[in-house]
Amino acid sequence: MIAPSESIENEPLFPNSSRVYVGGEQHPEIRVAMREIRQSDTSRPDGSTEPNAPLRVYDTSGPWGDPAFDGDVERGLPALRREWILARGDVEEYEGRDTRPEDNGYLSEEHARRHNERQAAKNRLLQYPGLQRKPLRASGGAPVTQMHYARQGIVTPEMEYIAIRENLGRAQAYEALESGAAEPGGPPRNALNLQHPGQPWGARTPRFITPEFVRDEVARGRAIIPSNINHPESEPMIIGRNFLVKINANIGNSAVASSIEEEVEKMRWATRWGGDTVMDLSTGKNIHATREWIIRNSPVPIGTVPIYQALEKVGGRVEDLSWEVFRDTLVEQAEQGVDYFTIHAGVLLRFIPSTATRMTGIVSRGGSIMAKWCLSHHKENFLYTHWDDICDICAAYDVSFSIGDGLRPGSVADANDYPQFAELKVQGELTERAWAKGVQVMNEGPGHVPMHMVQENMEKQIERCHEAPFYTLGPLTTDIAPAYDHITSGIGAAMIGWYGCAMLCYVTPKEHLGLPDRDDVREGVITYKIAAHAADLAKGHPAAQERDNAISKARFEFRWEDQFNLSLDPDRAREYHDATLPQDGAKTAHFCSMCGPTFCSMKISDEVRQFAAENNLETEEAIEAGMREKAREFSEGGGEIYS
Amino acid sequence: MIAPSESIENEPLFPNSSRVYVGGEQHPEIRVAMREIRQSDTSRPDGSTEPNAPLRVYDTSGPWGDPAFDGDVERGLPALRREWILARGDVEEYEGRDTRPEDNGYLSEEHARRHNERQAAKNRLLQYPGLQRKPLRASGGAPVTQMHYARQGIVTPEMEYIAIRENLGRAQAYEALESGAAEPGGPPRNALNLQHPGQPWGARTPRFITPEFVRDEVARGRAIIPSNINHPESEPMIIGRNFLVKINANIGNSAVASSIEEEVEKMRWATRWGGDTVMDLSTGKNIHATREWIIRNSPVPIGTVPIYQALEKVGGRVEDLSWEVFRDTLVEQAEQGVDYFTIHAGVLLRFIPSTATRMTGIVSRGGSIMAKWCLSHHKENFLYTHWDDICDICAAYDVSFSIGDGLRPGSVADANDYPQFAELKVQGELTERAWAKGVQVMNEGPGHVPMHMVQENMEKQIERCHEAPFYTLGPLTTDIAPAYDHITSGIGAAMIGWYGCAMLCYVTPKEHLGLPDRDDVREGVITYKIAAHAADLAKGHPAAQERDNAISKARFEFRWEDQFNLSLDPDRAREYHDATLPQDGAKTAHFCSMCGPTFCSMKISDEVRQFAAENNLETEEAIEAGMREKAREFSEGGGEIYS
Repeated sequence: MIAPSESIENEPLFPNSSRVYVGGEQHPEIRVAMREIRQSDTSRPDGSTEPNAPLRVYDTSGPWGDPAFDGDVERGLPALRREWILARGDVEEYEGRDTRPEDNGYLSEEHARRHNERQAAKNRLLQYPGLQRKPLRASGGAPVTQMHYARQGIVTPEMEYIAIRENLGRAQAYEALESGAAEPGGPPRNALNLQHPGQPWGARTPRFITPEFVRDEVARGRAIIPSNINHPESEPMIIGRNFLVKINANIGNSAVASSIEEEVEKMRWATRWGGDTVMDLSTGKNIHATREWIIRNSPVPIGTVPIYQALEKVGGRVEDLSWEVFRDTLVEQAEQGVDYFTIHAGVLLRFIPSTATRMTGIVSRGGSIMAKWCLSHHKENFLYTHWDDICDICAAYDVSFSIGDGLRPGSVADANDYPQFAELKVQGELTERAWAKGVQVMNEGPGHVPMHMVQENMEKQIERCHEAPFYTLGPLTTDIAPAYDHITSGIGAAMIGWYGCAMLCYVTPKEHLGLPDRDDVREGVITYKIAAHAADLAKGHPAAQERDNAISKARFEFRWEDQFNLSLDPDRAREYHDATLPQDGAKTAHFCSMCGPTFCSMKISDEVRQFAAENNLETEEAIEAGMREKAREFSEGGGEIYS
Repeated sequence: MIAPSESIENEPLFPNSSRVYVGGEQHPEIRVAMREIRQSDTSRPDGSTEPNAPLRVYDTSGPWGDPAFDGDVERGLPALRREWILARGDVEEYEGRDTRPEDNGYLSEEHARRHNERQAAKNRLLQYPGLQRKPLRASGGAPVTQMHYARQGIVTPEMEYIAIRENLGRAQAYEALESGAAEPGGPPRNALNLQHPGQPWGARTPRFITPEFVRDEVARGRAIIPSNINHPESEPMIIGRNFLVKINANIGNSAVASSIEEEVEKMRWATRWGGDTVMDLSTGKNIHATREWIIRNSPVPIGTVPIYQALEKVGGRVEDLSWEVFRDTLVEQAEQGVDYFTIHAGVLLRFIPSTATRMTGIVSRGGSIMAKWCLSHHKENFLYTHWDDICDICAAYDVSFSIGDGLRPGSVADANDYPQFAELKVQGELTERAWAKGVQVMNEGPGHVPMHMVQENMEKQIERCHEAPFYTLGPLTTDIAPAYDHITSGIGAAMIGWYGCAMLCYVTPKEHLGLPDRDDVREGVITYKIAAHAADLAKGHPAAQERDNAISKARFEFRWEDQFNLSLDPDRAREYHDATLPQDGAKTAHFCSMCGPTFCSMKISDEVRQFAAENNLETEEAIEAGMREKAREFSEGGGEIYS
């Protein structure tokens, strides 16, 4: 767990990085946050230098990543989107629902007090001390969702913000590609693969993401902007397969361990490393209070699984769950600002028996809760029967759906089986009904799927769910490596991201074994940033390869500090380098510890390059024509460029 | 680095595991080593128990993994294959080449003595104290290779050993699949994907690997058995796409760091975790001595890149390399028992200039050495011009080729470009020439390749290299994550393994940054075992899913200890579990730290399963017919199976 001394208050920001803001055009009030990484100059053999442009990268850390930001978790983040929301003129402030003892898992105020007396400091209920705004809701009967605006042709400030955010460095990337392709004399450079096999990717993606493209994708339901009007602190982001692949990090205390402070720390930690959304999966006590702390401090959308809290409210007795207690929980969470709800409305009574012959039955917690409820009442899932009511609530706050996959496979033996795909079809039906109410939707997917069965998941989801974004947990491509499931699942995540999955839910090394601590969160987020980026490259996202090219150029030119700074985890890259060669000099040396100073392939290769360039020997013909003479000169000159 | 106190002498073997030996039929002298993992019983709700069969897994640890083995590194391993080799009657003992000071990087005995005086104990030359056999070589003019025997229709003991080894648990796996598919009332179970898309996998693989199948694949050149007649300590294994995907671990001291003892430790450590072959990439001093220690103690084939040692012999001056010094090095290493040589004979003079316009030039050390040699002499690569001579040496000792890819891409920008595929075509030509001499061949491949360009690598290699096995380094699917390149490359490795790659060279977290230590070797090996196993599952290898099924069943039944013990890394799985719930009781509990005791989805799901089974409610019809009544009983009974 995270000890107080490890607070990220004390963590330095990324090295050689600055926070920059890019302004909007249609909405001049927009300031889109990015991180800019400065690079050192390239040193030429002749002693001259050549500058390397700074690289802009997508930044999920919010104001916490701005050194100029003067804030703390007890006050929360500024309400970035508040004015945009109010300016639309379709919401009203109202008193909202009172917080009750059962929201935090207590029978009464007295129980809460007694519980707190018994607990160690770290597990006590801590009411959020910062600003308590009155909640907003739709005032005019119409949805206040980004989808609703998009369908009316309105480009919201959120949409323009997203267009700017997704375009990071794109102009430069394209110039580099085009000039590379036209380079005289050299072999043809790789062009990015803009045609994605079997998917409509290439045909849709413009070279630059425009605000209008964002609007159109949201209107069609192909992308969502999770943005509850009561979470104005969040920075707009988009989830859809024609955009950068996003990743989610799960946090949440449990009945067994961890505290509110730790969860806030984990949220900030996850977004520092690149988490695009965070799900608060808390169970046990103090759910309401924990969530308040998280939302008020989160620059990214927050998702939840409301049935977890509803179950706490009925003392953990599944049979006692009801539409009334669930509805109350939805309103409670919508008023707090939860941006998307995972709802397991596709777990239908008739599918449940078919899970009994599976290798691993039902492994989704929400799915198993609903299965037990259905069986014990012999009634249809009340989330399904009340779907339209749920949609009305979500439409009034712009809470997006993440329609749960309660019957997802929990082992490769159960992958792509009848219960899984039966539920997927219902997810598609629920998607269309939500769209009819103007509510934004994504669909959750597995789970455990061997590689050869991954693509079928993506194809069936696109078809059955009408191109709504897909959001998968991994999938894990084998079951045999607990303690390494960030890797077993990172493989599947990269592949399904390439096939078109819009968001990847991270898996940490503790999956199946225990609760992730701070190091596990970092490991899980970085692994999933890798998977998402590998997918962006393979999809041919125009901006993706710019970062690869920058780091590869730095590597080849022995700009060690730049190589570290441009990487996903500069701290660890530097640490690993220094484990073998800790001296400062080693970071300017033209060699590394793998080969030592004498035979470095990069060094030799650099000599070859210089030699070929200086002698115009870049074609096979040149070799044939006059290379023997040049070779003799090279050899007589000592055969070393850097001697 | 590995401190002496961390010696694996003190490491316990895998928990709940036994070493078992399976005998041969055609060759009764064969005893194939396997590890058998015992499982605990399944506890039924009614108090009865049901046994779970032990699981046999492929074991690369050799005699070191047998608790009954009484040996130490100063004596080396028993010569398992010695009698098989002699019995073929086609080899002779001879005096062999004297070891010279330059073999270990010294100008004279006097230099070696002075060097040792200057060095700390850990970096001193340690002559191998164990058995010094006289080398063997072919005596009759014919090759003594497994390919030669295979072509003559001979099933060697090595081939039968391999057939038994590859068949682990296959019978059980098939029974499970067939009974699953036929299960009455349930939904159809997944069948394994025996038809691999675009590859001739399914058509070739029999349900059981027979010795005759092994022979046939080796005769066709589709698989190799690296098995130098001077490395009789090695246990037979096969590399080919119709067998289990193998992994290689690189070790080797460098000019900058590490000692002989550390390298022997790393070899034993790598094979403990599952390394199928080990490459000794040592440079700097004491190369010969280091290799002797490694080979005499290695139960797996050892590969090298002989040009590294040849370069040491000429004082690191690439221009001074010659066929004579290289030939001498090949004989030296063949006599020691190296099982496969990486030789960069495909780096032709005319391809070199085209690397100058690449993002990262030439990144293979061997490739850059040969490029520099070719340029400075303006002559064709002497490895290419002397290929037939090299083949004759390999044929006389049964050293397999791993034809190097000296022009592999070092960045995603350079993937699948002209120099890479031009060299691949030459690799194919060299393959056919080696086959004509009866020498076994595999081909090395990249490197850095984004996901959408991976499959083309496999397809082109199969076509241009006539189905010789492919052996790739990763490939890394993005360049942006130094310190996590085991993961960036594990993604590409799993995919290319699925597409048909026969062996995957591991990448550790230190790649691009420093020398791997003990933890990095473990992390790299486990990551690659995951990639290889995920590929075996996706290829539909008949035996692969048995282990997934066993661990998933254990997980679902809360047999925590079995879940740990069946995993690739039981120690870490247990450690991660205990980080949250260290009490012994937690390992028999029917819940875990993720959900706590109340809402565990596995527990609820187990109740659903029991309920459905006991009430014959396993079809949709049964639900419609009479389930309401059953549901009432379930609810009145408390709704809990385990209450």
